[in-house]
Amino acid sequence: MDPSTWLALHRSVRFGDTDAAGVMQFSQLLRWCHEAYEESLERFGVAAADVFPTPHTQLTVALPIVHCSADYFSPLVCGDPIVIRLEPIRLDLGSFEVRFSFTSQDRDVAQGLTRHLAIDSSSRKRCALPTAINRWLEASNLGGIQPL
Amino acid sequence: MDPSTWLALHRSVRFGDTDAAGVMQFSQLLRWCHEAYEESLERFGVAAADVFPTPHTQLTVALPIVHCSADYFSPLVCGDPIVIRLEPIRLDLGSFEVRFSFTSQDRDVAQGLTRHLAIDSSSRKRCALPTAINRWLEASNLGGIQPL
Amino acid sequence: MDPSTWLALHRSVRFGDTDAAGVMQFSQLLRWCHEAYEESLERFGVAAADVFPTPHTQLTVALPIVHCSADYFSPLVCGDPIVIRLEPIRLDLGSFEVRFSFTSQDRDVAQGLTRHLAIDSSSRKRCALPTAINRWLEASNLGGIQPL
Amino acid sequence: MDPSTWLALHRSVRFGDTDAAGVMQFSQLLRWCHEAYEESLERFGVAAADVFPTPHTQLTVALPIVHCSADYFSPLVCGDPIVIRLEPIRLDLGSFEVRFSFTSQDRDVAQGLTRHLAIDSSSRKRCALPTAINRWLEASNLGGIQPL
Repeated sequence: MDPSTWLALHRSVRFGDTDAAGVMQFSQLLRWCHEAYEESLERFGVAAADVFPTPHTQLTVALPIVHCSADYFSPLVCGDPIVIRLEPIRLDLGSFEVRFSFTSQDRDVAQGLTRHLAIDSSSRKRCALPTAINRWLEASNLGGIQPL
Repeated sequence: MDPSTWLALHRSVRFGDTDAAGVMQFSQLLRWCHEAYEESLERFGVAAADVFPTPHTQLTVALPIVHCSADYFSPLVCGDPIVIRLEPIRLDLGSFEVRFSFTSQDRDVAQGLTRHLAIDSSSRKRCALPTAINRWLEASNLGGIQPL
Repeated sequence: MDPSTWLALHRSVRFGDTDAAGVMQFSQLLRWCHEAYEESLERFGVAAADVFPTPHTQLTVALPIVHCSADYFSPLVCGDPIVIRLEPIRLDLGSFEVRFSFTSQDRDVAQGLTRHLAIDSSSRKRCALPTAINRWLEASNLGGIQPL
Repeated sequence: MDPSTWLALHRSVRFGDTDAAGVMQFSQLLRWCHEAYEESLERFGVAAADVFPTPHTQLTVALPIVHCSADYFSPLVCGDPIVIRLEPIRLDLGSFEVRFSFTSQDRDVAQGLTRHLAIDSSSRKRCALPTAINRWLEASNLGGIQPL
């Protein structure tokens, strides 16, 4: 399977993403980052219920975000087409980060980053990443990461 | 206790509430309605944990919104001061609605409505409203509603 | 051109759409309605800049939402696939509404409605709908509406 | 005037700030940062219309955010009271950042940062910060910064 099918995603800037300056409101970019992470897992074949809590599922491992950042290079307006490229990176056995780069018509417009920690849902202590996330991290790095 | 202390609330339009038309994005009004409902309960003396689920609390009754609506009379811009007046109404033993009217500098600018149903968390069937909500509904109507 | 290409759209419930009850937060549905309206116009061939203000474009006609409503039949959880069907209806020469029905795996889960008024940007008085919107309304109704 | 009146603000976690993990959704913190920045200016005495664009005002200087970050130390649930402390810092004649620290019941729960650049609205080139922002930066630093 070609990683670009789950690591390069598309969306458009929508009117509700903008503010009275006429351009994308800065915090929306971090919402896009998380939606791209979810869509990437979905396209790779990980079910949402394996990673994200729902009323029907009790997950043994939570993956809270402990850090995020974003840089804005160029304003985006309603209707702009966006390509989002994801670079998922395992940091250690119990954490990973995802780097997101945003281009619009081949211009670099922004970048984002989210860092996630694996937490045991009962003990609230750090633990190993879930298998589904490890498979996605390894496949995304094309053998660049040794399987654990 | 004077009902106006929990039925008349204040906020300002913030930049993140606006869109590229320069005015409040329509769906934000419904977010304001819900935040006003939460603040009203808080001021009346109902703890959030008695009505809204958290990871620490297992509520026996959920209060999902089954209907909402809003009407917009006048555009609102960043910085506009808003007064929100709430009119909570019990519809029957297991449901209520809240009517919200929004004024800015004595102008009627918008109105909103949310309708809530009591659902037993285990059986997912309709049930009676929680006591805390009944107290708030009755106090808000100044004796206009007979206690059950 | 087959109207279903711009009147039936798809999305998934994302984690940021949910709240601590584990299900879609009610006001997100109205954000989805507006995004579906934008995507529908885009697929039909109307450029965002012809309808939505940007810093680069001065529109002669604004289309503010004057009313919206939503009904919720069934809770939606993270990962649920959604089909959104749009029914755009011209109300008179200067206003239209869009009815949205939401299904997930063939279950009716919600419906929404937004009503839009054409306003002359200079005089702030009511005016006729823009040509691009009229073309979309007419094509969406398959000849059911007589061209003006 | 005591800087704490505009540099220490209060809010509560609202239900719409949470996600299906039961805790505050990470990107909401950045929205809180911006709302705290707006409230701080308002309390200090800067009118929103002097800093934020509205349909009625043509600002000569825009202040886009070029960078933001956040760190999350402890989960927040619906109803949690929050104190937000702002530390505004001028970086040079044409840019500043605001550091935000979040505590809840004397626990450090998160921190955030936004960096803002002054841009001339006509030429789209960097320019000096507006006078109102400079006054707020200087008063916030209690003479620690020399007036320009």
